[in-house]
Amino acid sequence: MTSTTTHPEVTISADPELPTIEIVREFDAPPAAVFRAHVEPELVKRWLGPRGLTMDITRWDAQTGGGYRYVHRDDNGEYGFYGSFHEIRPDERIVQTFTFVGIPDGVCLETMTFEDLGGGRTRLRGLSVFETKEGRDMALSSGMEVGIVEGYEQLDELLAEK
Amino acid sequence: MTSTTTHPEVTISADPELPTIEIVREFDAPPAAVFRAHVEPELVKRWLGPRGLTMDITRWDAQTGGGYRYVHRDDNGEYGFYGSFHEIRPDERIVQTFTFVGIPDGVCLETMTFEDLGGGRTRLRGLSVFETKEGRDMALSSGMEVGIVEGYEQLDELLAEK
Repeated sequence: MTSTTTHPEVTISADPELPTIEIVREFDAPPAAVFRAHVEPELVKRWLGPRGLTMDITRWDAQTGGGYRYVHRDDNGEYGFYGSFHEIRPDERIVQTFTFVGIPDGVCLETMTFEDLGGGRTRLRGLSVFETKEGRDMALSSGMEVGIVEGYEQLDELLAEK
Repeated sequence: MTSTTTHPEVTISADPELPTIEIVREFDAPPAAVFRAHVEPELVKRWLGPRGLTMDITRWDAQTGGGYRYVHRDDNGEYGFYGSFHEIRPDERIVQTFTFVGIPDGVCLETMTFEDLGGGRTRLRGLSVFETKEGRDMALSSGMEVGIVEGYEQLDELLAEK
């Protein structure tokens, strides 16, 4: 792996050989809690994306063969996203597709796995597969890093609540 | 592109740089007819896969954010498949995911485009993106070629009916 950016907690890696991005992050909560925050829409809208956005979910059918659609809004405008849920494997794995409405022919396949580290901790690993390295690099340069870092900070806060 | 296999009508190409397979095939029918044969389950089951199989579709919700599930059966046994429809763009484009139940962690992202060649003809282009080249090569060596060649022959026959 090259092009690795390491924050205190998130690792974002672009594979030199494949059109993929791998994101690894640990959480102080068990897999069931981290998983739940990915499939329940009322929880998802509280953490997904950078700080200061509002998220309107217009469809959310988090089951194998279901789909989703939402809009992120900030002072600069709105950004629509949609996709389908290929597989929801409770507490273990989510596979979904992802498209930014502004680039309607760009599709990404995302696999998230929830690894139990014991002691109430989870390692979340996300693999995003693009159709081309150019598409992958465009996503990387779009500011996705801010959304990931801040989104996972918001997820930390949500998981710490109970 | 290398590893190209050319039949009288189908071209199957494995990209040397990316974990993809491209399949190109022309049909003597307009895009709307070829598209329809991909989304209506009663038509799909008449052509998809190699000759001599029966196809039981247990779910088929061919809309953006929908899903599907089916079983192919022959004398040797049964083979389950499922996936989600990321996008259904009528007469133009279908993006879907695909998993063979026997390899539950293997996922493929498939984009089919229906290009109007004029004169009632269509060029169908399918791009399958795998997570790794190993996964792609495993699919290639699984006998998928027979299913594609014979399936598209059966689709020719179906399209010639009306």
